[in-house]
Amino acid sequence: MELKEIHSPADIRGLDMKELNKLCHDLRETFLTKVAAHGGHVGPNLGLVEATVALHYVFDTPKDKIVYDVSHQTYIHKMLTGRIDAFLNPEHYDDVTGYSEPSESEYDLFTIGHTSTAVSLAGGIAKGRDLQGEKYNVIALVGDGSLSGGEAFEGLDEGATLGSNFIVVVNDNNMSIAENHGGLYSGLKALRDSNGTAENNYFKSLGYDYIYVGNGNDVAALVEAFKKVKGTNHPVVVHIHTDKGHGWRPAEIDKETWHFSAPFDTKTAKLLHEDSGEDYSEIFMEETLERMKNDPKFCVLTAGTPAVIGYGPEQRKKAGRQFIDVGIAEQEAVAMASGIAKSGARPVFGVVSSFVQRAYDQLSQDVAINGQPVVVTIFYGSLLGMNDVTHLGWFDIPLISNIPGWVMLAPTTKEEFLSMQRWALTQTSNPVCIKLPGGPVRHSEKDVKSDWSELNKFEMTEKGNTVAIIGAGTFYPLAVETAEALKKEGVDATVINPHYLSGVDSEMLDDLKRDHKLVITLEDGVTDGGFGEKIARYYGTSDMKVKCYGIKKQFLNRYDYGKLLDESRLTAYQIVEDIKTILG
Amino acid sequence: MELKEIHSPADIRGLDMKELNKLCHDLRETFLTKVAAHGGHVGPNLGLVEATVALHYVFDTPKDKIVYDVSHQTYIHKMLTGRIDAFLNPEHYDDVTGYSEPSESEYDLFTIGHTSTAVSLAGGIAKGRDLQGEKYNVIALVGDGSLSGGEAFEGLDEGATLGSNFIVVVNDNNMSIAENHGGLYSGLKALRDSNGTAENNYFKSLGYDYIYVGNGNDVAALVEAFKKVKGTNHPVVVHIHTDKGHGWRPAEIDKETWHFSAPFDTKTAKLLHEDSGEDYSEIFMEETLERMKNDPKFCVLTAGTPAVIGYGPEQRKKAGRQFIDVGIAEQEAVAMASGIAKSGARPVFGVVSSFVQRAYDQLSQDVAINGQPVVVTIFYGSLLGMNDVTHLGWFDIPLISNIPGWVMLAPTTKEEFLSMQRWALTQTSNPVCIKLPGGPVRHSEKDVKSDWSELNKFEMTEKGNTVAIIGAGTFYPLAVETAEALKKEGVDATVINPHYLSGVDSEMLDDLKRDHKLVITLEDGVTDGGFGEKIARYYGTSDMKVKCYGIKKQFLNRYDYGKLLDESRLTAYQIVEDIKTILG
Repeated sequence: MELKEIHSPADIRGLDMKELNKLCHDLRETFLTKVAAHGGHVGPNLGLVEATVALHYVFDTPKDKIVYDVSHQTYIHKMLTGRIDAFLNPEHYDDVTGYSEPSESEYDLFTIGHTSTAVSLAGGIAKGRDLQGEKYNVIALVGDGSLSGGEAFEGLDEGATLGSNFIVVVNDNNMSIAENHGGLYSGLKALRDSNGTAENNYFKSLGYDYIYVGNGNDVAALVEAFKKVKGTNHPVVVHIHTDKGHGWRPAEIDKETWHFSAPFDTKTAKLLHEDSGEDYSEIFMEETLERMKNDPKFCVLTAGTPAVIGYGPEQRKKAGRQFIDVGIAEQEAVAMASGIAKSGARPVFGVVSSFVQRAYDQLSQDVAINGQPVVVTIFYGSLLGMNDVTHLGWFDIPLISNIPGWVMLAPTTKEEFLSMQRWALTQTSNPVCIKLPGGPVRHSEKDVKSDWSELNKFEMTEKGNTVAIIGAGTFYPLAVETAEALKKEGVDATVINPHYLSGVDSEMLDDLKRDHKLVITLEDGVTDGGFGEKIARYYGTSDMKVKCYGIKKQFLNRYDYGKLLDESRLTAYQIVEDIKTILG
Repeated sequence: MELKEIHSPADIRGLDMKELNKLCHDLRETFLTKVAAHGGHVGPNLGLVEATVALHYVFDTPKDKIVYDVSHQTYIHKMLTGRIDAFLNPEHYDDVTGYSEPSESEYDLFTIGHTSTAVSLAGGIAKGRDLQGEKYNVIALVGDGSLSGGEAFEGLDEGATLGSNFIVVVNDNNMSIAENHGGLYSGLKALRDSNGTAENNYFKSLGYDYIYVGNGNDVAALVEAFKKVKGTNHPVVVHIHTDKGHGWRPAEIDKETWHFSAPFDTKTAKLLHEDSGEDYSEIFMEETLERMKNDPKFCVLTAGTPAVIGYGPEQRKKAGRQFIDVGIAEQEAVAMASGIAKSGARPVFGVVSSFVQRAYDQLSQDVAINGQPVVVTIFYGSLLGMNDVTHLGWFDIPLISNIPGWVMLAPTTKEEFLSMQRWALTQTSNPVCIKLPGGPVRHSEKDVKSDWSELNKFEMTEKGNTVAIIGAGTFYPLAVETAEALKKEGVDATVINPHYLSGVDSEMLDDLKRDHKLVITLEDGVTDGGFGEKIARYYGTSDMKVKCYGIKKQFLNRYDYGKLLDESRLTAYQIVEDIKTILG
């Protein structure tokens, strides 16, 4: 059948094995054409073509429910569930997101982008189904890489006790984004090597029935396995061994590089547009690799995203045991960092803003209450970062700056970042979090101080009067730009780089009262619970007026950067307009 | 030897087995005398007497490091490590906390009170030791109940790959606070039943070497096992089967009741002081049990703390499958609740304030982004709640109120609570969090509305002028009291019960501008990132003055309630004083 004839999974359920194989071939080719032109998750989807087809062939979706973990592997699923046009027609490529999305289709159950959640969510659906006396299959599809996350374990542990239909498909391609880390993976290897018969089966130890499919890219074998478990009356794991990147040689060979890719040429496997600008991943990597050479006590942690912090296979090899990838397990990264610091060694954990929220309790209890000088460097904590709703970088200021003990710093340039991180790794008084700025890497024009131990000491970079503009991190340049625009209006504004997000400089704020009427705060995050509100509260009983800029408390999906800045009035022109209104 | 002669573990290392047994006997008696007079964790410590003695007998503490999970089982440890006087001498009972505490002793490595963290923390110490080329044993002691937490899994998974000395002692008493829940526990039972030889060994599946000790209250067997693993060059699990409550019959029989107790009589096993007041645990339990009868779709979740929400064994039996204890696994509880809601059923998760922070990512992604109408009812979210530094109830407002989508409500009476929770479980527009007030249960004097769907609608309970006092939750009575005190000063203040913590009533706030000069906010939590700051920001560009009351961003341990209220100026007298100063 032609792909364009697929309107729903029902359309493929009459096919024979030969036709299913052809379907898999066509889906893979079409997927590859789109992802090469558009960019996206390459390897995870290539590896899962046959399993996705087999799932929809065997199960009565959408009555039967499939919950995808992370859901970056749902491209083929989308092609089978009424969204083929978004893959065949370049004009409609952007009609679908890169993750499962209920607003697109009833076949998509959750908007998800973080790992390790599918088993828990599916377990909840199964429980709700049973409470309501309904009958259908509930399937969680989870990758081996996601199993390192604590939530996946909790989901498996609880799911095993449901006592009714519950099917966990473990898509084992022997990879996370990079290679897997954790003792669990030696156990999974033993299962693969023994065709599922090894002693000490992790899933059986948790109480699951268990089926192994050695060739997870053989659609017939998958159909047979799924038919066996369809309608089961108890929890069962179907462990399928797939080949990440299957069917496109470059992705089969270099699984890490081809996990996700910007647009590329399928013939040469080269990116269409080389990115040549400076970035904080490389800056962080170069700085920390160099530091390791001089300090054997120093180490870098990642939770399954080494590339984000600049560490490719070559750099990881150089770093050796001073580089620790704990797998996708942010709680472990933070708690382990506390233990490392307690022992007298010095850890820095490099993490994506949206993922650090998975470790709030550890940041608070394991680190802050214990006063361990753990350093956390946050990447993509910016409205100029990732714009998928599941990866927003807007919430880290309310999250971390309000935990007692944490010093949260907002560098505005490469030089400030390096100085702050070096200081943070030398001092032992506080845990320190450094929120990297968004946008192109900027440089300091003058020397940057090396000692940041006088906490909450803001820097006044231009002394003016009437209006003071405090521009934190990403938005310090906007503060400068706004002050310049104000000059044309005859106002000689003060400009402040606060450096600190976790407290206020009461001395400077008190000083401002003498000849200022209005303080403007600019921060790269939601204003609710953020930095500006601390300033507003501080001035609450004085005559000083305060206007806080940032992002409204909201979730947005695939927003336009310029439009969001505009809606948030985060442009110099709009701020000047507001200032004129406030000053009257 | 006499207990009072024990100054450090070195003092017991010369004893023979007979003397060790006598030591265990004496420690248990002394512990029991103190805990009966003082209150504390009974069962966990009774069960661990022999293991604690054996650990300090075999290992060279403090050079060798023991990290205790939760650390509510460290009473015997404290008796052996220089703190015996705090157990022998009633005048010094309060010299030590109920958890491990580095400020008391170098034998205590971390201040911990949440579960499931020890393996991660100990893994970090082992890693730091290796980076620094040092040699000592690192031991994590973790209970079976704690193993249901995701962080414990993450710690085990990573710890297995350390490739050096790492000893995990699993204290398996076949109990959490209540009975265990999760598939893992069928696996542990199989190990106990087979003297450690069962197939599908969870720990071996993660790559650990493994030793089983069937009688974990036999000090000789424990000494032998610990001697075997002392100095090991690889990760090993020592699985010891202990008897929670061992040596005191009432606690052996009713392990749940005697997990923790207020002061009691060791002869009659009766509490010395019966607590007869109304409490929200019972109110919640009665309300939800009744609701279950009428709605089979409705269910209650707990993460291992059923008693907190009023569910003893009898109530759990009545609730049947509509009561779900996921084990100590808050991430699972929240994510599963999202799945349950997605299926069309209606869940409420009752949780302690300090533990809900373990599920921030799930509250945000699994629930809020997906718009599922999950209901979370928060207990002990008050400065009048638990006062151990690891259990503070001060941080839930910044944590939850700043996540888009969550409606956070602050009832001030039993009737408001019931009305809010009933409404929350009927509507499907938002996830709703209800923060129960601290202090004695209060009652509404007039009818409470039943529909809370007009979000952020504050209630003006007294109309005055000049000063408006917004008293949220626990502190609404303080707002009333302050207004009364102000009357004596000739100020006729407005009093507002905001009901909502996650947004502001802009209409009412704008109205106040007409005849008010000052708005006071009172909230039961840290002011940083909290409710009052939203009001301060809202009024930032107006002439309205705002003064926010709450608790300073800080951690405190075993504070005095009255003193903290006083220091925070949370008394009517102090607030009136401040108001007079501000109004001049």
